[in-house]
Formats: sequence, structure tokens, C-alpha cells
Amino acid sequence: MNRDVVLGVDIGGTYTKYGLVDQAGRIFLEDEISTRDYKVIEDFIIALHRHLDAHTDRKKDGFVIRGIGIGAPNGNYYTGSIEYPPNLVWKGKIELVKLIEKEFGIPAVLTNDANAAALGELLFGAAKGLDHFIMITLGTGLGSGLVVNGELIYGSDGFAGELGHVRAVDNGRQCGCGKRGCLETYVSATGIKRTVFELLAEETTESEFRKITFSRLSPRMITTLAEKGDPIAIKAFEKTGFLLGRSLADSVAHISPSKIFLFGGLAKAGRWIINPTKRSMEEHLLPIYRDKIDIVPSALLSRNIAVLGAAALIWKHLDQEAGR
Amino acid sequence: MNRDVVLGVDIGGTYTKYGLVDQAGRIFLEDEISTRDYKVIEDFIIALHRHLDAHTDRKKDGFVIRGIGIGAPNGNYYTGSIEYPPNLVWKGKIELVKLIEKEFGIPAVLTNDANAAALGELLFGAAKGLDHFIMITLGTGLGSGLVVNGELIYGSDGFAGELGHVRAVDNGRQCGCGKRGCLETYVSATGIKRTVFELLAEETTESEFRKITFSRLSPRMITTLAEKGDPIAIKAFEKTGFLLGRSLADSVAHISPSKIFLFGGLAKAGRWIINPTKRSMEEHLLPIYRDKIDIVPSALLSRNIAVLGAAALIWKHLDQEAGR
Repeated sequence: MNRDVVLGVDIGGTYTKYGLVDQAGRIFLEDEISTRDYKVIEDFIIALHRHLDAHTDRKKDGFVIRGIGIGAPNGNYYTGSIEYPPNLVWKGKIELVKLIEKEFGIPAVLTNDANAAALGELLFGAAKGLDHFIMITLGTGLGSGLVVNGELIYGSDGFAGELGHVRAVDNGRQCGCGKRGCLETYVSATGIKRTVFELLAEETTESEFRKITFSRLSPRMITTLAEKGDPIAIKAFEKTGFLLGRSLADSVAHISPSKIFLFGGLAKAGRWIINPTKRSMEEHLLPIYRDKIDIVPSALLSRNIAVLGAAALIWKHLDQEAGR
Repeated sequence: MNRDVVLGVDIGGTYTKYGLVDQAGRIFLEDEISTRDYKVIEDFIIALHRHLDAHTDRKKDGFVIRGIGIGAPNGNYYTGSIEYPPNLVWKGKIELVKLIEKEFGIPAVLTNDANAAALGELLFGAAKGLDHFIMITLGTGLGSGLVVNGELIYGSDGFAGELGHVRAVDNGRQCGCGKRGCLETYVSATGIKRTVFELLAEETTESEFRKITFSRLSPRMITTLAEKGDPIAIKAFEKTGFLLGRSLADSVAHISPSKIFLFGGLAKAGRWIINPTKRSMEEHLLPIYRDKIDIVPSALLSRNIAVLGAAALIWKHLDQEAGR
């Protein structure tokens, strides 16, 4: 029996994860290859193809791969190119969709990883049937995908939804983008680490963090210490949530979503991050928006949302092509 | 010969303007009645109907009014109600569409005034064919309409696009909404007046403004004095543009529009407001968005955009109903 699937690919700076995903969001194969090892994009694509073939005897398993969806940093839906990615080995403008379609001979679609996550939630997660929502992905940085009228916003240039770079604090922390005070310098795995170290500098409070280096510190450790009652850990979450909630209040004033989803390592902190974020958002909302908007962890928190999202992207594309 | 038109109605705190508008955006009749004089909404609607009849002999002129579009503060597209308007004589939730349809016997649609302005620009102005743009209306306050994928964003509750209440300054000026630092407390007719008076307090510079009361001061006077080289006037525009541009950079990070339109008294200041806004927006934009986005005065600056916009709203609705 033949089984229609798509290939969902999530390109990260270090690893590229992929999986075969059917229209119900079931993943039949999930694996990864190194991104960094392939200095030339063409070599990476050939490696991906071989790796996939080696792990699937498609004929035997009856998989029919209908298309390829890709999530990648700075991936542009309109152009099909990865444009000037700061954290990938490939530089400049990489015509990924063109190269992938040439190698695999099936349709491919690209967007950035946070947009893919939003689509994953929309097709396979807790955003099913929602017309207006925001997905916030909290990784090394902060990514976002905005859905309006049931459609992801790509904007005029394919780069809409960069909430990691809205102004969280006037003249605030230095950001990798060249600006100051960007939201992701406070709200992300790196951001909360910076906050922990800022608090260690500002306060004299005893804390387990005084024995941990910046490099070793992880969001999971901050959650663990918060649960043990460490005052610096609790304060770090409070500050992170305050700034995220305050910025989200402004995002609500733009698109008025019914729900906001959090995904990524920091989202796994659950109530430690959700509660202060909610409190701060409500405090900063225009009265007409109050007590209406849910902030919840992604329903796909324990699954590979980027692969699912990339799969959602190409399923959506194939459906549109078929006029469904 | 019969001429198909719609009635566009712009309800303001003091006056209600209306006009008959055809599908090409030509206005055949334009007049106004008092809003404030009618303490009861039903009386207002009857007055509007009589006033319209008195000024048009519809049979003779051959006008066939197909529907009614209404722009009003806190007008909600989904519910057809004006909800808790701060500046109208009618309080609470006013079921305007229901009442209007009952009185006139034709379809009616409602949204807020800034959304109507965005639709006016989209159907009859310089936004024709644009998929992604922002309309900023600068009146007593700051209103906005956001268009994405060629459609106005109403959001989950009908209240999307309240950019007047994003955080322009941390712990800034008191706003009528109960918050502090909202964009409209700086960028609006009232906002720039407050800035002029702040500058008069902070600086010792000689200025014509030292002879003018707060109540008498208007945006037009600030423009006139800027043109005469008054340093306070020029600085007031600089500061207003700086804050508007900085906030717009964050709006771009949400929906990535190709154009931003300014409408209203303050927009008539032309380069005095446009230039510092552009400069500041470019400075605060994430690099990928730079040098792409136009900020321009509305093409309908000298026309009644709110009436045209309300007309655009109902034309769009009638087209959708007809499946066009």
C-alpha cells in the first residue's frame, strides 16, 4: 500500500533534522544530519538525499514523497532563498528551493523556522481552526510567526514576524542585529542567562548561580533552581516574563490574536515563564483587549515542531496547488 | 438613468459627515449633521435619514442607495456595534448596524474610522493594488488600519490595529486609556501640542509659542512656525517624527508592509513630519527591512477619507455578498 508523505526539513546552525510526515501529522521517520560539516550547499543537499534513501527503502515501506517543506533561519517564502543567514556556514543568498527541487525532482517550499512552527501548530497542534494567533519560539534567539485570517503573514518581502527585534527596552542590551534593546536580548535562552548574570551583578543575594559559568548555564537549570526557591532564578523569570508580556501587549494592539503560543527550551519552564508573562501582558494591554487572550505552551512542545511545521508548509502548498 | 451609490457615514464626536459615493469613489453629495445634538441614538438615525432625504431627491437624481458604510470610534466590524466610545454622547454598547438597517432597510457595515481610512486608501487612493500597508490617522488621537494580503486586519475581536496605544516611551505621558507612554500621547494633534509645551518648559529658547495658549494651539500653527524657522516648532516635529518612526520600525517587524500612509491634520505638515519619521524608522529598522518602505501622506489628504472609507467598506461588503 502506498502512503502519501512529505519530507519536513528543519535546518539549524549545527544540525538539520528531517522526517517523513503524513497529512495527519504522523512522523514516520525522524533523523538528523550535520549542517556544519557541509561547507558547500550542493554537498549538503546531496548528503540529505543519500541519508534519506539509506534510512528508507521507500519502495518497501510504500512511502510516496509528494514534496519537501523546509524551515531555515532567514528562509524567504517568496524567493525560496535563505538570505544572509547569520548562523549558517553558507553565506549570502542561497537559492535553496531551486537546488532542492533539482536534486529531488519534487516541489519544495521554504520559510523561516518560527513561521514553520506557527504552521505546525495550525495544522497539527492546538491552533487548529484558530484564525488569529501568534507563535513565539524561544531558542538561542526569539522567533515568531503571526497568523491572521487563518493565514501566516509573510508581508511584502517575505520577512514579516520578526518580534525578536522589537524594542523591549529603550537603549537596552546590545543585539546581534546591530540594534540595542531588542526583545530577544532579554527573552530567549541567551536573554535569560544575561538576566541571571545581571542580577548576580546587581544583587548580593546568595544563589547557586554564583557557582555556574555563563557558558554552562541553561534555561533548564534556571527552571530547576526556581523550583528549589533560588531567588535569582525566580527574579530572572519575573523580569523575562515582564518584558515579554509588555511587548506582547503591543503585538496584540497590532493583530488582536485570540491565543499566543510559546515554544522552545524556555517555554518548557511552564508556569515560571507563563505566569509573569500573562500578568505583565494584561497590565499593559489596552482595556478593550483584557481578559481575552490565552498565553499557552505549544501543544507540540515535546515533538519536533520545526519538522512538523516544515511538513505543514508543503502540505498547505500542495493543497493549494490542487485547488483544495 | 439610475446611478448606484452607497452612503458613507463618518461619525465623529462633534459632527457626522456623510456622502453618496459611487464605485469609482466619486462623491455626489457631501454634508454633515451634528452628532452631539442627539442624546438618543434612535433620534440621531432618524435625523440622518431625514437630512439625507431633504438634500437628495433620490428619484429625480436617479440615485439608488445600495448600502450604508459607517466609520465610528470603537466601531466593531464583527458585532456591528459601537462599543464603549470614549468621545461620543452615546454610552455603552450601541447596536448601530441593527438600528441603521431597520431605519433604512438596506445592508449596513461598521468599522472604526482609521480602518475605514485604510479601506478608502485601498479602494480609491494610492494603496490600490497594495497587499501590505499601514494607514496612520493623526487626529486628536492616533488611529491605524493594517492591511495584510490585501485585507484589512480586524483580528479575533474586531479591534485589531490600535497603534495609538503601543508603548512609545517607558513610563511616559499619561494617556486617556489609563496607560502611560502610549504613542498617541506624543504623535497626534494633542501629542505634538504637549511636546511644544514640554519644550517651552525645558528650554529657554525664544519662540512665538510663548504667546499662545495650549487651547488655541493647532498643528497648522506649528507647521507655519516651523516654516518661519521657529526652533521649538522644528524640534517638536523632530521629536514627534522620532517617536513615530521608532514605533513604526516595530510595526514593520510585525507585518512588513511596503508602504505607510499618514492622514490627518498633522500629516498635512508634509516634510516636517515625514522626514524625521522616515529617518527614525530607518535607524530603528532591522537591517533586512531597510530602504524598502515608503512613508507618504495619504493620496486622499484633501478629501473626506473617512466618508470615502466608509463607502469603500460597504462596497467591499456588497461585492463579497455578490460573490465578486
